[in-house]
Amino acid sequence: MTDSIAANPDRLLPADPGTRQIARELYADVEHLPILSPHGHVPAEWIADDEPFTDPTSLLVSPDHYVTRLIHASGVPLSELGVGSGAPQGEAASRAAWRRFAEAWPLFDGTASGYWLRSEFEHVFGLPSSMVDALGSNADTAYDAIAAKLADPGFRPRRLFEDFNIEVLATTDDPLDTLEAHGRLAKDESFAGRVIPTFRPDPYINLAHPEWAARVARLADEASDGVPGFAGYLRALENRRRYFVEHGAVSADHGVRTPLTLKLSPTEAEALFEKARRGEATAADRDAFEAHMMYEMARMSVEDGLVMTIHPGSFRNHHAPTFAAYGADTGHDIPFAVNYTEGIRPVLQDFGTAKDFHLVLFTLDETVFSRELAPLAGFYPSVYIGAPWWFLDAPDAMLRFRSAVTETAGFSRSSGFIDDTRAYCSIPARHDTSRRIEASFLARLVAEHRLTEARAHELIVDIVDAAPRRVFKL
Amino acid sequence: MTDSIAANPDRLLPADPGTRQIARELYADVEHLPILSPHGHVPAEWIADDEPFTDPTSLLVSPDHYVTRLIHASGVPLSELGVGSGAPQGEAASRAAWRRFAEAWPLFDGTASGYWLRSEFEHVFGLPSSMVDALGSNADTAYDAIAAKLADPGFRPRRLFEDFNIEVLATTDDPLDTLEAHGRLAKDESFAGRVIPTFRPDPYINLAHPEWAARVARLADEASDGVPGFAGYLRALENRRRYFVEHGAVSADHGVRTPLTLKLSPTEAEALFEKARRGEATAADRDAFEAHMMYEMARMSVEDGLVMTIHPGSFRNHHAPTFAAYGADTGHDIPFAVNYTEGIRPVLQDFGTAKDFHLVLFTLDETVFSRELAPLAGFYPSVYIGAPWWFLDAPDAMLRFRSAVTETAGFSRSSGFIDDTRAYCSIPARHDTSRRIEASFLARLVAEHRLTEARAHELIVDIVDAAPRRVFKL
Amino acid sequence: MTDSIAANPDRLLPADPGTRQIARELYADVEHLPILSPHGHVPAEWIADDEPFTDPTSLLVSPDHYVTRLIHASGVPLSELGVGSGAPQGEAASRAAWRRFAEAWPLFDGTASGYWLRSEFEHVFGLPSSMVDALGSNADTAYDAIAAKLADPGFRPRRLFEDFNIEVLATTDDPLDTLEAHGRLAKDESFAGRVIPTFRPDPYINLAHPEWAARVARLADEASDGVPGFAGYLRALENRRRYFVEHGAVSADHGVRTPLTLKLSPTEAEALFEKARRGEATAADRDAFEAHMMYEMARMSVEDGLVMTIHPGSFRNHHAPTFAAYGADTGHDIPFAVNYTEGIRPVLQDFGTAKDFHLVLFTLDETVFSRELAPLAGFYPSVYIGAPWWFLDAPDAMLRFRSAVTETAGFSRSSGFIDDTRAYCSIPARHDTSRRIEASFLARLVAEHRLTEARAHELIVDIVDAAPRRVFKL
Repeated sequence: MTDSIAANPDRLLPADPGTRQIARELYADVEHLPILSPHGHVPAEWIADDEPFTDPTSLLVSPDHYVTRLIHASGVPLSELGVGSGAPQGEAASRAAWRRFAEAWPLFDGTASGYWLRSEFEHVFGLPSSMVDALGSNADTAYDAIAAKLADPGFRPRRLFEDFNIEVLATTDDPLDTLEAHGRLAKDESFAGRVIPTFRPDPYINLAHPEWAARVARLADEASDGVPGFAGYLRALENRRRYFVEHGAVSADHGVRTPLTLKLSPTEAEALFEKARRGEATAADRDAFEAHMMYEMARMSVEDGLVMTIHPGSFRNHHAPTFAAYGADTGHDIPFAVNYTEGIRPVLQDFGTAKDFHLVLFTLDETVFSRELAPLAGFYPSVYIGAPWWFLDAPDAMLRFRSAVTETAGFSRSSGFIDDTRAYCSIPARHDTSRRIEASFLARLVAEHRLTEARAHELIVDIVDAAPRRVFKL
Repeated sequence: MTDSIAANPDRLLPADPGTRQIARELYADVEHLPILSPHGHVPAEWIADDEPFTDPTSLLVSPDHYVTRLIHASGVPLSELGVGSGAPQGEAASRAAWRRFAEAWPLFDGTASGYWLRSEFEHVFGLPSSMVDALGSNADTAYDAIAAKLADPGFRPRRLFEDFNIEVLATTDDPLDTLEAHGRLAKDESFAGRVIPTFRPDPYINLAHPEWAARVARLADEASDGVPGFAGYLRALENRRRYFVEHGAVSADHGVRTPLTLKLSPTEAEALFEKARRGEATAADRDAFEAHMMYEMARMSVEDGLVMTIHPGSFRNHHAPTFAAYGADTGHDIPFAVNYTEGIRPVLQDFGTAKDFHLVLFTLDETVFSRELAPLAGFYPSVYIGAPWWFLDAPDAMLRFRSAVTETAGFSRSSGFIDDTRAYCSIPARHDTSRRIEASFLARLVAEHRLTEARAHELIVDIVDAAPRRVFKL
Repeated sequence: MTDSIAANPDRLLPADPGTRQIARELYADVEHLPILSPHGHVPAEWIADDEPFTDPTSLLVSPDHYVTRLIHASGVPLSELGVGSGAPQGEAASRAAWRRFAEAWPLFDGTASGYWLRSEFEHVFGLPSSMVDALGSNADTAYDAIAAKLADPGFRPRRLFEDFNIEVLATTDDPLDTLEAHGRLAKDESFAGRVIPTFRPDPYINLAHPEWAARVARLADEASDGVPGFAGYLRALENRRRYFVEHGAVSADHGVRTPLTLKLSPTEAEALFEKARRGEATAADRDAFEAHMMYEMARMSVEDGLVMTIHPGSFRNHHAPTFAAYGADTGHDIPFAVNYTEGIRPVLQDFGTAKDFHLVLFTLDETVFSRELAPLAGFYPSVYIGAPWWFLDAPDAMLRFRSAVTETAGFSRSSGFIDDTRAYCSIPARHDTSRRIEASFLARLVAEHRLTEARAHELIVDIVDAAPRRVFKL
């Protein structure tokens, strides 16, 4: 037994010795299964180009808003962490930002990000746990050690893809993306992995997006088959979805403000669309249009088979001055309460029992797990409960999730784990965390004689491997 | 020690050995106490007529929307499960539906329904656990075994009533029900049990109920003493409540949309009533009338002593096509968030300290347990916290409930367990589950030295036996 | 090992033996650290005057609405518990009320108040646990024993201050309070403790407060420097805050209806102010004015350095008849759901990153811990997550709190414990409870290899001692 918590074979497993022993055996069933990542944000170009990562900071710190946000909360400006297009570039700036991160390292104890980073440092980059325990005093040594690894051909993106045992990695892509990198990878016989695009049309649907009009104009130009107006807009979306399907996409993802859906008449929808094109849409128009477009997206998913995933309930860019200075995705998207029961109903009226329609509902508001999502997914064949996501993608939150949904919906109605990350090197730690927590939850049910041990061994494989294949049509 | 989880004497008890030992001893105090069921849906005719149950499917599957909903979610049409008046009848249809259920049996692992069904199969019907573990492969054998039992005189409803050790069983009844079956049972000296009616006036109060006008007209005809209009409607409700009291009823139950209550002036209330009779009531009128009628029902409970129970917060018949095809109570009532603090206030202003008024507040929204119900019941003598109900009637949810309410309201302010079921054979398993979980919760408090062991032994008897007698005036 | 649960050295620690051993060692680090109480309701006069407490009931029962509320729920009128200005006075009345309390003592099993009271009885007043276990049969004996202690010079407030090992005790004070008692204590060289005032302007801000106009008029008279109108009102508040700062205050506390904040234009704010002075303010005006004044209070805190604490989400004086008979703070303030994400945003736009601004957000709605408060405090340097407060100040609720916030915000973003009490003798038990629960939570993370044991030993000292000093600028 080592002193490193990241190397401890029992990490994240329950403390009670009897339950832990059951959990160990369940975990062993899935420890080495390949990683299926049906939703995430790693750029396909990283894998296709296979360029070395440049430096520790831009790989591990600056782009990870889970990490920079907590350091920012301690009083460090984001600019000192390499965030934003105006951040200083070069090795000195990278090293300076890394030092700020290393000083702040103790803030991460007990957090999900801290757990993943420690795993990466020890398992991916081979730092000794004593160095990680005192990262603040070892900032430069750790930086140099990681930088040296990054320069090693064994740390190129494709080699890591293999070492991480990734079988499927989904990216998140603009509807007008050519998917050139995906195409290159698909044709490359030297690359055995599967990197698939995801259709993410938010900026084309959200009337409040600053580029909505420009993007919609470009969408019409490129894909409307010459059909004008709202009909052409829908046609273009359908065409681009088909293009994504042809390039291997399995799902369309929607980051919406609320779970509201709405079936407007074609005339009403067109009127809103034209009003927005004239720059006259109100906040209420924005919500109504987004709600109607979720209905249209569901209809298209029924027709073209793309799994529909919805991520509502985040107040995006909560701090306007930070948004102005550093842009979006800089750590101040803050969740709020949602109402799925009433919001999602219009879609479910028409498509809740549609053949092969898969609708995965994510939430940042834990209260809907037992109250709304388990009851919905426990009736509607189309509905799957999204795995705990974002702020809830952490050991205790995952256990609360399973406790909240299982007694109503069992194990068959949840989506399977998604890592939702652009932190490439954290992918193994994230999936391993999920597997350990699933083993922990099942072990408790076995220890309490609520589940046979034999069945728990079947269930953990189903949860880790079969569920994402089934739900995301992999 | 057997391999059967349903037969394991430690089932549902905590895994920690020390805590489990305490829980075992607490459970032993209440294991054999009689069942008090002050709220449920078993028809009184079943007990009064004492006819044999016809077949496994119509007893255990078709009418149980907890069961059919999860099979439906897996893609099986409700029609194949014997749901709805149009479902095929006869032994072949019953057996076919049973096979669909048996195939779907693995979906129920980890669910409350799965736990109850397994208990019934093993404890009531004597199926071997190996047969239950692989029900899909043993569908016909299990069907035949259960059918054989049902043909046995030992499985008539009254004999089961005794075997289940039921002392009191409350039914749920229409205000105009003659209560003939209850009367027959009361007079029958060969039957020692107590089967009592419950006054449930929802369709006479909910203006949106399709039969509201017809039912209210019939109510007026039968019970208004010739008083016309709204005054006659109130008089008729009072008269029928008195009739229920005379036939042994102890409570009036209200399935309302929200917890809103409201004291309208007589003129306002009458105007809404007449508007509804003209077929002109809006959704807002419906809510206002229901809210006012909850005020009137509280007033009547203060006067006639019927315990008032409220079950708000379920979006009934969420999927319109299923409702159209199969009717109500077919698995798609979906909870939503409620606000008891503001909603129930008008009733509490006037009746919160009324002598002998008992108001039991149920919820499907767990967030109100610590935030609203424990604080309300910890001050108002009339208010009791309803036991975890429906989707929350399950081991983990029950533990969350106790954890949420006890630190504010102690043990004296909760209602005691209700099974709320029409699944007659599940009643012993449901009450046993509750007793095991109460023992588990108390055992943890003892193990953490938050409660003396002597006091825990008193409390578990109070919770299981004295509380329902006290709260429901049994 | 004694039989007394209050004397058990392992009380409140986790049952699992391995985890308990870790928790014991963590608790030992902080068991004897001085008490820092940056928010509470003990009158400064008690310490300054150092008069003996008069009797057990007026010290332990009548003023503690946590205690009287649960006895009231069991059917005892508040008048029989010595509540309200009309309650009978004198030894006979005190003893009669005590007997009602002692009879009701079993109701408190499992509650936080019961746990604290038992600790006080055994640790502060030295009652044997056998007497406490059967308080109903020992009412007079216990009364006499406590009364005898209160007559002892060793039980004067200052001596208890020392015995309780209190280093800092903050009171809660009216803006126009002269702080005479605080001044006396500060000058008294025989008293080593620190008793500091807290600026609490609610009745000067809440337009619905019955004395708002009168108080604001007096405020203007005393502190507006002759400036008229709304500008003078703001000037007076600024002046009184400065007075509090000069007398040692570190924070300003705000008991608001909701977390809503709003930046009105000076003209709009002044118009509302004048409308209220004319007695014409509506409920919407009240909310808007309070929201704007929270913005002004934040601005003043940025300027004068007072930590700003907010306590929203309680429906005050829920039962109007009880309020009419007994006044405020008599046990019927009932929580409701809040929305911090949208409500607090206007303040955070302008002051969320302001230098040295500390904004502590409390909640009675647990759902915001993981959904809103941890995400907010995990980004904004000004925001700290308020410790579980009021109904949530209890072992299980504290564990739920840590589980809900830590994975997102770590340990550095929470406020540290506050006891918020006027029950002076409960202060040691409350702080001890918090320390035991922090040890329990950290021990679980260690046992699950999510935290090194070395780091847990650092963290518990930080949580108990450094955090309140840092967050409250002690």
